[in-house]
Amino acid sequence: MTRAYLDHNATAPLRPEARAAMVDALDAVGNASSVHGEGRAARKRIEVARADVAALVGGDPRNVTFTGGGTEANVTVLTPEWTLAGRPLGIERLLVSAVEHVSVLSGGRFPTDRVELMPVDGDGLVRLDALKEMLAKPGKALISVMIANNETGVIEPVAEVAKLARAAGALVHADAIQAAGRVPVDIAALGADVLTLSAHKIGGPQGAGAIVTAGGALAFAPLLAGGGQERRNRAGTENVAAIAGFGAAGKAALAGLDAAGALEGLRDRLATIIRESGAKVTVFGEGAARLPQTLCFGIERISAETLVIALDLEGVAVSSGSACSSGKVAPSHVLAAMGVPPGIAKGAIRLSLGWDSRPDDLHLFSTAWRRVLKHVAPGKVAAA
Amino acid sequence: MTRAYLDHNATAPLRPEARAAMVDALDAVGNASSVHGEGRAARKRIEVARADVAALVGGDPRNVTFTGGGTEANVTVLTPEWTLAGRPLGIERLLVSAVEHVSVLSGGRFPTDRVELMPVDGDGLVRLDALKEMLAKPGKALISVMIANNETGVIEPVAEVAKLARAAGALVHADAIQAAGRVPVDIAALGADVLTLSAHKIGGPQGAGAIVTAGGALAFAPLLAGGGQERRNRAGTENVAAIAGFGAAGKAALAGLDAAGALEGLRDRLATIIRESGAKVTVFGEGAARLPQTLCFGIERISAETLVIALDLEGVAVSSGSACSSGKVAPSHVLAAMGVPPGIAKGAIRLSLGWDSRPDDLHLFSTAWRRVLKHVAPGKVAAA
Repeated sequence: MTRAYLDHNATAPLRPEARAAMVDALDAVGNASSVHGEGRAARKRIEVARADVAALVGGDPRNVTFTGGGTEANVTVLTPEWTLAGRPLGIERLLVSAVEHVSVLSGGRFPTDRVELMPVDGDGLVRLDALKEMLAKPGKALISVMIANNETGVIEPVAEVAKLARAAGALVHADAIQAAGRVPVDIAALGADVLTLSAHKIGGPQGAGAIVTAGGALAFAPLLAGGGQERRNRAGTENVAAIAGFGAAGKAALAGLDAAGALEGLRDRLATIIRESGAKVTVFGEGAARLPQTLCFGIERISAETLVIALDLEGVAVSSGSACSSGKVAPSHVLAAMGVPPGIAKGAIRLSLGWDSRPDDLHLFSTAWRRVLKHVAPGKVAAA
Repeated sequence: MTRAYLDHNATAPLRPEARAAMVDALDAVGNASSVHGEGRAARKRIEVARADVAALVGGDPRNVTFTGGGTEANVTVLTPEWTLAGRPLGIERLLVSAVEHVSVLSGGRFPTDRVELMPVDGDGLVRLDALKEMLAKPGKALISVMIANNETGVIEPVAEVAKLARAAGALVHADAIQAAGRVPVDIAALGADVLTLSAHKIGGPQGAGAIVTAGGALAFAPLLAGGGQERRNRAGTENVAAIAGFGAAGKAALAGLDAAGALEGLRDRLATIIRESGAKVTVFGEGAARLPQTLCFGIERISAETLVIALDLEGVAVSSGSACSSGKVAPSHVLAAMGVPPGIAKGAIRLSLGWDSRPDDLHLFSTAWRRVLKHVAPGKVAAA
């Protein structure tokens, strides 16, 4: 059965360019820290990837540290121990928006009592007025705001956050994991001090992430100590194949930004299909700028779990909120922070498109959606 | 040019079984935490691998936590925050042998002043008498001793360490990264409370590691918090392909233990080739039981770096000590702890065999070795 995979925000299919780079690396042996030819070839693959990943966000390859994934990247940068030219910055508290990914909300290496939540508005946008008040309080802060939300696709005002941060002497971490490769991301234009990335959201492999700092003088305390890899920023044998795949995916994603933007057309047609089915639909974050490929909506009185399973049986892969939170009974913290009533949040479904999405996926979804609604809510569906 | 790769302890070539499992997983999309069919298929790959990795060390799959590599596994378990059935064990100090891998020597999440070094004897074996004295001092301890040393291959008396530990109420971590798949490893027979593993040392991919605890009631504080993956023991999207490759490699390594043991014959012939070349050779750890596939030796007055580069040019990949420490000027901390004089330690070369080693590698090495010695130390070489 041909299936429609509408869950790119959970994990994207591997791009052919990334697959080729990975298989090529897997078929070569080599520890990138070894002196011999095999080791030097592995090192070269990593440095090529470093340049490609840096280019994706307008960064300098020298400021890129590879990690084992996005969560590790986030936990690593969320530390009070930042230095500038070797001098401690004296960060005392962490301000995170209420809609951040759970790996950021958990506060990384900050003690729990040093983590403060920034409220968001009804579209899930960080309230800059509230941030200003928080920054006026004593204690040098690290601010963590995602560029785009993983559940709703809402794009946060990171550049505005960074302006307020600069005025207050605070540092800004922007989680670029869902934004990179989908909308243009430029670390300098954003004014962020550090970005984090994940390969598997952009068509690279699972198991690779990156930290990109704005300048070489800015440094974080390593999370993993031991060997001298990644200029002592991250110990552990480099995952050459995954890093090579990450680089290839980053290069392809950068070249494909126009196509990624054009997914908005497909996305809006998905919304139309849902609305025309007669169900009472709320599209979350509709009042804000959103990623072109994310659609998060809720239908009253139908549980998301029922819909996800029924759509899966009809050949369409979608998700309810974040995969990282799946299994949890509580409704999405993102929607709760936006003030969405639990009754609607419980029915939230996320459709996310990507590099391999095609009009056919819409036809598959349309057919599946009408069949599913007929079963789970027969009274609510318009005639097919 | 046919090359001889004698650096399995740095990273082993990917086994065909692991490659097949990885490519299979890379060609499927799926976040293992997703509810849909693609997600469930990814989850299944992980659980198959979990059983295979558990079997490699006689563990229970329910007690296996996958990580992004061996360093992450070591840093994760080296924490004072262990609990038994939810009750804190109250660990106050960490005792590590002086020959541990740098990721263990760094002390993980213990404050530096809570890390104590256990001395070793001239073969690099932990001195049990010294450990006994250390355990007699107050403060509940976590002991970290590797099963086999990465540089010399020397096999540590972990079962004896565990007996002393049990009598003193201490916990034992055994770093099994270099031992697994090379000699039989059984967590119960060792009496260890927790083992750590790395995929790429046994012919699996880089970027996967595991923590195996002796019992389900024993738990460590997660290093990576965020999503609920790995039963909340390790947040972050699972690297399905790497984990699948790890499982396949583990299964193949377990089946190939006899062949791994037989590498001792090749290893001893390598030693003979070196000795017969007329160079004055010291084999490190020769008085102790060693991994069948590791040979670490030193030649007076010839620097290891010179030999590694010259052998590489002749088509043979070897290393000087650990790849994780490469770039460092200081001689090996392992050899220093064994009391090897710096003049000899500076010339230490490690040859390590593995699943793809074949008698041909010996011929290649033999030819290369004589040519190299003739160039770097013309007076010292017996007639070829």
